[in-house]
Amino acid sequence: MEHKKEEDVSEWYNEVVETAGLSDKRYPVKGMNIWLPYGWKIMQLIDRKIREEFDATGHSEVCFPLLIPETEFQKEAEHIKGFSSQVFWVTHAGDNPLDIKLVLRPTSETAMYSMFSIWIRSHADLPLKIYQIVNVFRYETKQTRAFIRVREIHFFEAHTCHTDAEDAERQIREDIRIMENLGKALALPYILHRRPDWDKFAGAVYSLGADLLVGEKALQIGTIHQYHENFAKAYNIRYEDREGNHRYVHQTTFGLSERLVGAVVGVHGDNSGLVLPPAVAPYQVVIVPVPKKEKKEAVEAYAKEIWKLLMEAGIRVHLDLRDLRPGNKYYDWELKGVPVRIEVGEREILENTVTVVRRDTKEKGTIGKVNLAEEMRTLLTKIQEALYEKARRELEAQTHWIGTIEEGKNKKGVLRFNWCGEESCGLEIERLLDVSMLGIPVNVPAKKGKCIICGKETEIVADAGRSL
Amino acid sequence: MEHKKEEDVSEWYNEVVETAGLSDKRYPVKGMNIWLPYGWKIMQLIDRKIREEFDATGHSEVCFPLLIPETEFQKEAEHIKGFSSQVFWVTHAGDNPLDIKLVLRPTSETAMYSMFSIWIRSHADLPLKIYQIVNVFRYETKQTRAFIRVREIHFFEAHTCHTDAEDAERQIREDIRIMENLGKALALPYILHRRPDWDKFAGAVYSLGADLLVGEKALQIGTIHQYHENFAKAYNIRYEDREGNHRYVHQTTFGLSERLVGAVVGVHGDNSGLVLPPAVAPYQVVIVPVPKKEKKEAVEAYAKEIWKLLMEAGIRVHLDLRDLRPGNKYYDWELKGVPVRIEVGEREILENTVTVVRRDTKEKGTIGKVNLAEEMRTLLTKIQEALYEKARRELEAQTHWIGTIEEGKNKKGVLRFNWCGEESCGLEIERLLDVSMLGIPVNVPAKKGKCIICGKETEIVADAGRSL
Repeated sequence: MEHKKEEDVSEWYNEVVETAGLSDKRYPVKGMNIWLPYGWKIMQLIDRKIREEFDATGHSEVCFPLLIPETEFQKEAEHIKGFSSQVFWVTHAGDNPLDIKLVLRPTSETAMYSMFSIWIRSHADLPLKIYQIVNVFRYETKQTRAFIRVREIHFFEAHTCHTDAEDAERQIREDIRIMENLGKALALPYILHRRPDWDKFAGAVYSLGADLLVGEKALQIGTIHQYHENFAKAYNIRYEDREGNHRYVHQTTFGLSERLVGAVVGVHGDNSGLVLPPAVAPYQVVIVPVPKKEKKEAVEAYAKEIWKLLMEAGIRVHLDLRDLRPGNKYYDWELKGVPVRIEVGEREILENTVTVVRRDTKEKGTIGKVNLAEEMRTLLTKIQEALYEKARRELEAQTHWIGTIEEGKNKKGVLRFNWCGEESCGLEIERLLDVSMLGIPVNVPAKKGKCIICGKETEIVADAGRSL
Repeated sequence: MEHKKEEDVSEWYNEVVETAGLSDKRYPVKGMNIWLPYGWKIMQLIDRKIREEFDATGHSEVCFPLLIPETEFQKEAEHIKGFSSQVFWVTHAGDNPLDIKLVLRPTSETAMYSMFSIWIRSHADLPLKIYQIVNVFRYETKQTRAFIRVREIHFFEAHTCHTDAEDAERQIREDIRIMENLGKALALPYILHRRPDWDKFAGAVYSLGADLLVGEKALQIGTIHQYHENFAKAYNIRYEDREGNHRYVHQTTFGLSERLVGAVVGVHGDNSGLVLPPAVAPYQVVIVPVPKKEKKEAVEAYAKEIWKLLMEAGIRVHLDLRDLRPGNKYYDWELKGVPVRIEVGEREILENTVTVVRRDTKEKGTIGKVNLAEEMRTLLTKIQEALYEKARRELEAQTHWIGTIEEGKNKKGVLRFNWCGEESCGLEIERLLDVSMLGIPVNVPAKKGKCIICGKETEIVADAGRSL
C-alpha cells in the first residue's frame, strides 16, 4: 500500500479497492465498473444478510423491469424534478426510434406504482411489502468513486403500502430496527439523521439517512422515506376499506446499495489493506502451510486436515497451496482482509495445534486442534464484535460539539451543534463550514442552546459533515 | 384451469404462468414482465444450482456493466450482424446527447473481451473461466411469451479463455457435463444438438443447443459455443506462451436463461397447474390442517410440530393457516405445484402419523411421525427422479424417425431423419415440414441411409421440430 489512510483517505480508498481486487474501473464507460470475483462475493454476502432481514419481516422479493416509459416516469412532479437530469434515455431499438422513450430506472417508484394501482383492491391486500435487488442508473456529474459514487449502482429497494399514516409510521419504525440489525451484521455503526427538508428524497414527506464516517468524511449508507399519500395520489393507488370507502394508501421505501461495500472497505480497512468483518468475508479463515522443505508433504496433509475440519463446520475457509513463500501469502491475505490466518508447520503438527493471527489486531495465538471449529467460531464472533466496537468508538470520538461557527472551522468528522431549524441558517452553516447538513440525529436527545447562526433559542441538535 | 395442456399447450402455458403467480405481463412495456415472488423464488433456486455447478468447476462469478459503447460493440463483424437489429440504444443522459451511443447488452462478449485483452498477459493467466448472472435485452419482434421469449431476459453466461484449441475443446466437454448435471437437477431431460451452420451463434465456430419438448413444441434451454480465435482476433486477446511467443486465446461460452423456468413449467405442469421438481420448489412440502371445529387448536398445534420438525431438517416447508376451507387450500397448492401436501387431522394425531399426497401422481399415503424428516427426504428424492424419468420417456416417445418427408407431415414432437448435411436440403426440410432444424443430435449414433430430400447416401442423423 502506497497511501496511508490517515494522510489521504480518498487515495488510500482507491488503492485498497484496486489492489484487493474488488472492482476494475478500466471499463470503457465512466463510472461503470466491473465487479471482480472477490468484491462481488462480499456484495453477495451483504445481499444475503439484507434478504434475511427483509424476509423475516414479511417482505417478498420481486423483480421489476429495468425500463420505465416516459409517460409513467413523469407522473409525480417532485420526483421527476429530482431525477430528470440524471436519467439515461433509451430512444431506439435496432434502427427504429421508439414511440415512447424509455428511462433506465434511477429508482423504481415510477416502475412499480402503476402496477400497485392494479394489484391493490381492498384493505385485505394491505400492507403490501416488497423488495428487489437490482441495478439502477444515475448520470452522476460529480467525480465517481468505486461503490460510493457510480453510474450503475447495485441497489436494494423495499416498497410498502399501508392503510393509513399510522401503519406507515409503524413501518418506518420496523425499518429503523432492520437498519440497526444490518449495522450490527456488517459491523457498521452509524448515526441516523432526519434529513433537512431541502435534502429529502424527491417526492418524500420526510427522509431518514444512516450516516457513518470513512476517515473524517461522511458517507450515507441507507435511507428510509415516508411518502404518505404523495405517490398514491399521482399513481391512483387506492383501496376499499371495511366501510366501502375508497382511500389512498400510505407508502414508504427503504434504500440500500453497494455503498455498504464501500463502507466496509473504508471504515475497517487499514494501511495493510482490507479488514473484513467475518460476517461478510468471502474467506473467514485462510490456512498457510509453513513447511521446511523435507516436511512439505506432512505439513500440507496436516493443513488439509485442518481445512476439512473447518469447512465441515460451515466456516468459509481457504487453503493456500500456491507455490509462493509464506511471507508473500501473508501479504496477499492481509491485503484481502481475511479475518483469521492459520499458520501450520512442524511445531503445530507435534503439538496438535494451529497458530492463528487476527487480521484486525495482528495478535498471534495458538488453538488446539481438539475443539478447533468451536473455538474458531468464538474467535470470529469476537472479531466481529471488536470491529463494531472499534468503529463505534471512532465515530463517537470524531463527533464534535461546536458552540460557534469559529469552533467548527478546525474540526473534522461529524460537527454537532444547536440549530434553529430554519433553512436559511442551515444553508449558511453549510457555506461557512464547507459541510453538508446531515440533519437531526434521531437518537440524540434535544438540548437547549442557541442556533450557531442566528442565536435564537432552540432545542434542536443537528449534525453536519463533509462527504466522501 | 380453463385450458387443457393436450389441447392447446400455448394457451395452457400462459394460463399456468398467470394463475400460479409466477409473472405479471401487464407491465406497460411489451415483453418486459414483472417477476412475482413465487416465480422469482423458483428462478433463484435454479440460479443456486447453476452457481453450484460453475463454482465447482473453477469458474469465478463477476458482474460487468450493462452498457456497451457502440465502438466496442462493433468490433466482431459476424456478431454485430447477428445482434444489431435487436439492440436497445441509449442515446441521451439527462437532456444531453451522449458522445458515444451505448447498447444495452444483448449478451456480453463485446463488453467483456476488451477487458480480457487487458487482464490476460501470459499463459499463467489461463484458463480464464468466469460467469455472470445478469439481465440482457433483445428487441424481439416475434410474439412474446413469459420466460421463453421476452425483451428483458434473466440470463446466465460463462466465458472462458484457453491457451489452445485442445483446451477449448476440453472446456466444451466440461460444459456438456455441467449441462447434464443441470438437466438432472431440474428434472429436464433434453437432446443436445450441434446446430446447423446457418443457425450457429453470431461469431461462433460451432454451437451446441440443448432442446426439450413442451407438449409437442421444441424449446432450447441451453447453448454452448466454441469461438476458437474469432473474438480473440477482433479484440486482440493474446498471451505470451512459455517460449515467449504471443498467441491468440481460444474462447468458449455457455448460455442459460429464465427459459429454464419456462421449461420446468411446460414440461412438468398438468391440467391442475404447476408440478415443481423438489429441487427448485420454493416450498417442497405444504401442511394443511384439517380440523373438526372443536379440535382446531389441537390439530393446529400438531401441524406446527410437524412444520418445525421438517423445517429443522432443512426441508422447505410451509404451514397454511389461512382461514379457508381445506379444499380451497388443496386447489391453491396444486396450482402452485408444491411436490408434497401433508394433511393432518384428528386421526393423524391419534395414530402419530401424517397423510401425504404427491402432487405429481396425486397418490395418497401415510408416514409415521417418527422418522418423518428422513422419509420425507426419501420421498422428495423419489419424486425428483420420477419427474425426470417421466419426462425422459415422453421425450423418447415423441421422437419420431421419418424415412420420407411424407411421413413427417403428420408427426409432431422431434422429427429424426437422415440428412446429407447440405444447407440447401436442410432449408428444404424446414420449408416442407414447417419446422426448424435442431441439428445433429450429439449422443445419437450415426446411421446409414438416404437424405430425405436429395436421396444422397449419408450417415448423418438430424432432428427438427416446431418451436414453442
